[in-house]
Amino acid sequence: MKGKFITFEGSEGSGKSTHAKLLKDYLKKKGFSVELIREPGGTRISEKIRNIILDPKNKAMTDICETLLYMAARVQIVKEVIKPALDKGKIVICDRFLDSTIVYQGYGGGIDLDLIKKLGNLATLGIKPDLTFLLDIETKEGLRRAGKIKDRIELKSLNYHKRVRKGYLALAKKEPARIKVVCVENHNKNRNQEIIRKYADRLLCR
Amino acid sequence: MKGKFITFEGSEGSGKSTHAKLLKDYLKKKGFSVELIREPGGTRISEKIRNIILDPKNKAMTDICETLLYMAARVQIVKEVIKPALDKGKIVICDRFLDSTIVYQGYGGGIDLDLIKKLGNLATLGIKPDLTFLLDIETKEGLRRAGKIKDRIELKSLNYHKRVRKGYLALAKKEPARIKVVCVENHNKNRNQEIIRKYADRLLCR
Repeated sequence: MKGKFITFEGSEGSGKSTHAKLLKDYLKKKGFSVELIREPGGTRISEKIRNIILDPKNKAMTDICETLLYMAARVQIVKEVIKPALDKGKIVICDRFLDSTIVYQGYGGGIDLDLIKKLGNLATLGIKPDLTFLLDIETKEGLRRAGKIKDRIELKSLNYHKRVRKGYLALAKKEPARIKVVCVENHNKNRNQEIIRKYADRLLCR
Repeated sequence: MKGKFITFEGSEGSGKSTHAKLLKDYLKKKGFSVELIREPGGTRISEKIRNIILDPKNKAMTDICETLLYMAARVQIVKEVIKPALDKGKIVICDRFLDSTIVYQGYGGGIDLDLIKKLGNLATLGIKPDLTFLLDIETKEGLRRAGKIKDRIELKSLNYHKRVRKGYLALAKKEPARIKVVCVENHNKNRNQEIIRKYADRLLCR
């Protein structure tokens, strides 16, 4: 039996990580074998790459470099963690995946989208999420909720973050069967998690 | 006045680094402003990436990850060091450049050559060497001269290193105007350096 791959996407402050953890706990209680991971990171090599990407001292980093580093970290976690877990029939929940690079470095940073997709194919070894939750939030409100600006990525301009949000919504429009948009401001956290669980249940009962 | 960009390429143990340094000293004595750099590395970010690439503990690194890391390190040194120096009219001598990725990760590691070239275009910001020295040496003799096996790259198999050499010679055949092959075993070090200086003089007198 092949496992299922679920990803969480969204702007800063959208609550991705919280909801990913809540869904993991929910599915574990239901008896599933679940692995929760976070991108970039999750392997020895990917964590070292993550440190370079997020270090605020690396101000000179070009968008091209950033894109390549995300992809380099990705191929390692796919090869070492995601693929083996899916092969064992596990559910893998990933906090950010290829969609993040498409919207942050592509829509946000201006790197050619076709090139990102080609690189993405290579870096994901062709593995696509079965289900993606896009936690959508108005840009300024998201940045406010994210609280203090902590790392290099979060230091970028408001316009950049607005392009990111637009990119996410464009992806969701293109792939409605995979990407479910959760408007986090419409409801409280519990109600949002209920919506997420409903889609996950539907995927796993199939 | 635009500067000139000279690269040194070759297998392990071919003497690249020695000859690059000798050429730098020679050109400096002639009054040129010369910058000698080494790839991967040469900037804060690129050196951190270099450490990940060469760390023997990172055995799990895929060829795709390796390729992306080389390119990520490259775009930073091009943007921060090579391009500014060339813009000031300097001579930049670089120990390894894009050709290395084409032959090591492409011919050696089996990554699609077209993709490497596309990525290369992006990572070099379109900057090509004016002159490249390929220091060619029989594979086993090169590995013997390189002495003790020191890092992860040098640990790869003999067949891999043979594919690398073939790749280099194929590139030289395709671009004879740019790539000058120096058969290091035919002569001693001093004679090889004379050959290198002759080509460099020709480039700089133009």
